[in-house]
Amino acid sequence: MSLKKLFFPGLIATFALSAIAHFLTMNSTLQFVLAALAILFAAGFLGKATESVAHYAGDRIGGFLNATFGNAAELIIAIFLVKEGLFDMVKASLTGSIIGNLLLVLGLSVLMGGLKFKEQKFNSLLASHNASLMILGVISLFIPAMFLTSFGEGTHRMNTLSLIVSALLIAAYLLWLLFSMVTHKKELADHVETQPDHGEQPAWSAKLSVLFLVIATVMVAFISEWMVGTLESFSHQFGLSELFVGAFLVAIVGNAAEHSAAVMLAMKNKIGAAVEIAIGSSLQIALFVGPVLVFVSSFTGNTMDLVFMPVELVAIAVAVFIAKSISQDGSTNWFEGALLLIVYVILGVAFYLI
Amino acid sequence: MSLKKLFFPGLIATFALSAIAHFLTMNSTLQFVLAALAILFAAGFLGKATESVAHYAGDRIGGFLNATFGNAAELIIAIFLVKEGLFDMVKASLTGSIIGNLLLVLGLSVLMGGLKFKEQKFNSLLASHNASLMILGVISLFIPAMFLTSFGEGTHRMNTLSLIVSALLIAAYLLWLLFSMVTHKKELADHVETQPDHGEQPAWSAKLSVLFLVIATVMVAFISEWMVGTLESFSHQFGLSELFVGAFLVAIVGNAAEHSAAVMLAMKNKIGAAVEIAIGSSLQIALFVGPVLVFVSSFTGNTMDLVFMPVELVAIAVAVFIAKSISQDGSTNWFEGALLLIVYVILGVAFYLI
Amino acid sequence: MSLKKLFFPGLIATFALSAIAHFLTMNSTLQFVLAALAILFAAGFLGKATESVAHYAGDRIGGFLNATFGNAAELIIAIFLVKEGLFDMVKASLTGSIIGNLLLVLGLSVLMGGLKFKEQKFNSLLASHNASLMILGVISLFIPAMFLTSFGEGTHRMNTLSLIVSALLIAAYLLWLLFSMVTHKKELADHVETQPDHGEQPAWSAKLSVLFLVIATVMVAFISEWMVGTLESFSHQFGLSELFVGAFLVAIVGNAAEHSAAVMLAMKNKIGAAVEIAIGSSLQIALFVGPVLVFVSSFTGNTMDLVFMPVELVAIAVAVFIAKSISQDGSTNWFEGALLLIVYVILGVAFYLI
Repeated sequence: MSLKKLFFPGLIATFALSAIAHFLTMNSTLQFVLAALAILFAAGFLGKATESVAHYAGDRIGGFLNATFGNAAELIIAIFLVKEGLFDMVKASLTGSIIGNLLLVLGLSVLMGGLKFKEQKFNSLLASHNASLMILGVISLFIPAMFLTSFGEGTHRMNTLSLIVSALLIAAYLLWLLFSMVTHKKELADHVETQPDHGEQPAWSAKLSVLFLVIATVMVAFISEWMVGTLESFSHQFGLSELFVGAFLVAIVGNAAEHSAAVMLAMKNKIGAAVEIAIGSSLQIALFVGPVLVFVSSFTGNTMDLVFMPVELVAIAVAVFIAKSISQDGSTNWFEGALLLIVYVILGVAFYLI
Repeated sequence: MSLKKLFFPGLIATFALSAIAHFLTMNSTLQFVLAALAILFAAGFLGKATESVAHYAGDRIGGFLNATFGNAAELIIAIFLVKEGLFDMVKASLTGSIIGNLLLVLGLSVLMGGLKFKEQKFNSLLASHNASLMILGVISLFIPAMFLTSFGEGTHRMNTLSLIVSALLIAAYLLWLLFSMVTHKKELADHVETQPDHGEQPAWSAKLSVLFLVIATVMVAFISEWMVGTLESFSHQFGLSELFVGAFLVAIVGNAAEHSAAVMLAMKNKIGAAVEIAIGSSLQIALFVGPVLVFVSSFTGNTMDLVFMPVELVAIAVAVFIAKSISQDGSTNWFEGALLLIVYVILGVAFYLI
Repeated sequence: MSLKKLFFPGLIATFALSAIAHFLTMNSTLQFVLAALAILFAAGFLGKATESVAHYAGDRIGGFLNATFGNAAELIIAIFLVKEGLFDMVKASLTGSIIGNLLLVLGLSVLMGGLKFKEQKFNSLLASHNASLMILGVISLFIPAMFLTSFGEGTHRMNTLSLIVSALLIAAYLLWLLFSMVTHKKELADHVETQPDHGEQPAWSAKLSVLFLVIATVMVAFISEWMVGTLESFSHQFGLSELFVGAFLVAIVGNAAEHSAAVMLAMKNKIGAAVEIAIGSSLQIALFVGPVLVFVSSFTGNTMDLVFMPVELVAIAVAVFIAKSISQDGSTNWFEGALLLIVYVILGVAFYLI
């Protein structure tokens, strides 16, 4: 009880200190430590808010909102990078977000949930559609790369292909929302998890929950950006490649929102909502955020194509195939979580060594 | 009723006009319009005949007959091309048939059926075997291409490999027929769809239905070929590549039979028969028609190998993986149909831009 | 009865004759014939011992023991090759073991079992985890190869990557044992097959069964090695490539233990145990034996990396995808066995022609 009372003061204090350290450009190690503390509190706040929203709106909508707010921050940061023409860094961070969500967020959730519960089940129709959408995402990233040798980089034809593919992916994503939120909402609901919550009342009203979800997301976004700034100076110090920093360090910090919420939900046996956050978020990145960035870039007159580096494609394909293989039966256990994390570490080591 | 009475006169009239336009080599736009009209009637006729046969022989046999008659026409056309040594065009049209059936025919059927029925189910044992066979098809096309660098093109060893792989694929296809039509016929039957047909009596007797199926297929084959002729002059006019014309335009027209029948069946909630037509037809192309053409070519002394172009392999692999992911749970809905069509359009755009 | 009495004398006589022929380095054809006879008896003995152990310890443990004893022999032979720096031959034999188990052993078991029983079922949770582990194996072999162009062969970074990946794979394998033998043992048990054994009493006690399992494995290992020696002289005689001999001939003989036991179990409708042997053995090779060899090599100061040849990677990926597609529904029939064998023959022909 007394600990709970300290939560909000701690949240505000660490956020304020981290902000001060950032704007006064203090020593970067100090900045990093303060940001790390602040993000612990903010992510916890976000987790609680998501859970509370999920209580009112259902696990799936709650998960969707969490993923969307989490990615909104990433989209905004990426738009600034696109405007400056830093396409490689944008693609590295998209790659990192996708594999971070599919392997690290999903892996941690499944592992932590699996250590507490022998078997966790979620809606298998949802699982099968997630798998199909992930394959669409992989296809849409492989096709431009495959046609690169025929088309040539930066050519008009490659840009045209990238724009059309992007439009089709956005269409697919909107159709998916129509399908999952409107026409087949009931079929995708998680019958398995509607065990009574044992009278557990959420602390906040529905409106307050949504408000807190927004506030928490904004806080996480700010702290993430400050932390990313320190990570870059760190990476120079330790001689890390831009690819590794973009695809791993930035992505891990940038997905703090998804991490905390998904793991928290998995440990309450709401694995369906955790999967919705992890896989839903990576689908949103691949089918919506990436394509939107292509369009944004084309408005600046310098179109970003959808051609990813071979190692990025390999990483995404690997993440999708193992996540698909593990999630498609609609049932998870601790070993499957461990497998996902092992694949994440293998990819991390490979990217680190490049 | 009065509309139904106009069907047969319309069929015969459009077929006759189209034939006249073709043999008098009239203006190609006129030829095209007449052929397009004629194929609408003929495809409708074929759809009705298939449905009637399916009523007597069961959905699966009906679907198999439809696919076989549809592919027989393609086989005959391809044999002429092989004799003239036009191997690239043959491979482009095989590629087009496979992806056209897996994405366009299956996609349209699933979408149209799904707009009418919330969920359509079919035998999941069939779905799982279809998936395994599709993977065998992909494997058999990738292996010769993978060994191309070790073997070299047009070498004796590559031809030997192509002939042996072809023989094994034909063996696999014949074993599949033995399995699905004899030893495990009952297990693959569609229990789900044996809802009574509400006393809907077919208009024709069993014998007449088969006769009409043959006649309709022959008509479609003729009109398809006439239309293909006009398409080629079209393609020159609009500057389309041979690959795009072969893999998309020819394939769409050439598979008119499968299209009309499959969509019609899906809309009557017989999605199992529609899947049998779409996936069965593409399997027949990959495991039977293609390999037979390799043998036919070897008799002419100029063996066609099984080495497809990388973009063709990518297109086939992409089509197989998304079709497998969507069909393997034995249940479909409108969104899955839309996904298949989106992938088809992405591939079409990529081939168009080459 | 009288035939059964002749079994042990036959076993000892053929083993002794084969040993004499080997150590006196008699004519290699004679050596081969005697070794072939001896291995028939020894494999039969091993099959019986496995079955008897499986009776006491359950199908899964029995299968695991069979796979482990079978691979122990291969590991010992491979360590000698690694010490001599014959890395290519080691990798060829690892490749051969993986595809031999997934395609030949599994294919023969499924085919023979399927000819006797219409449908054979096994635990589908086991099937789904096997699939995920197989994908991990493929990923772990593809990643080093994919990063080869960035890293360069034989570089310090490639060796570091190979060592770290190997450590992670061994960790994954040990976690899998913990999961399948301890935390989720009951869930992975084969409820389907616990039909009473109709009072069929095993001939030997539990202790004697294990002892015989060890003895039979040692005999098979010896005869295999003698036979491998003759095969090499054979291969020179017939102009076969080292890759073909390593990946096919050696692997077929070297996996005699798995073959005989798995087929025997499948024909007694214990397909779960047969799958455990075939897939379990190939997983053990990919996730444990291969990685251990990397560590062994690093102790000799000349680290073997995990970079396989492209044709080997293709063969492994092909084998995994078809085996995964066929086994993941937890149900098998004769046609699926035939498919696996057809893919094995396709790969064999391709390797033979290189």
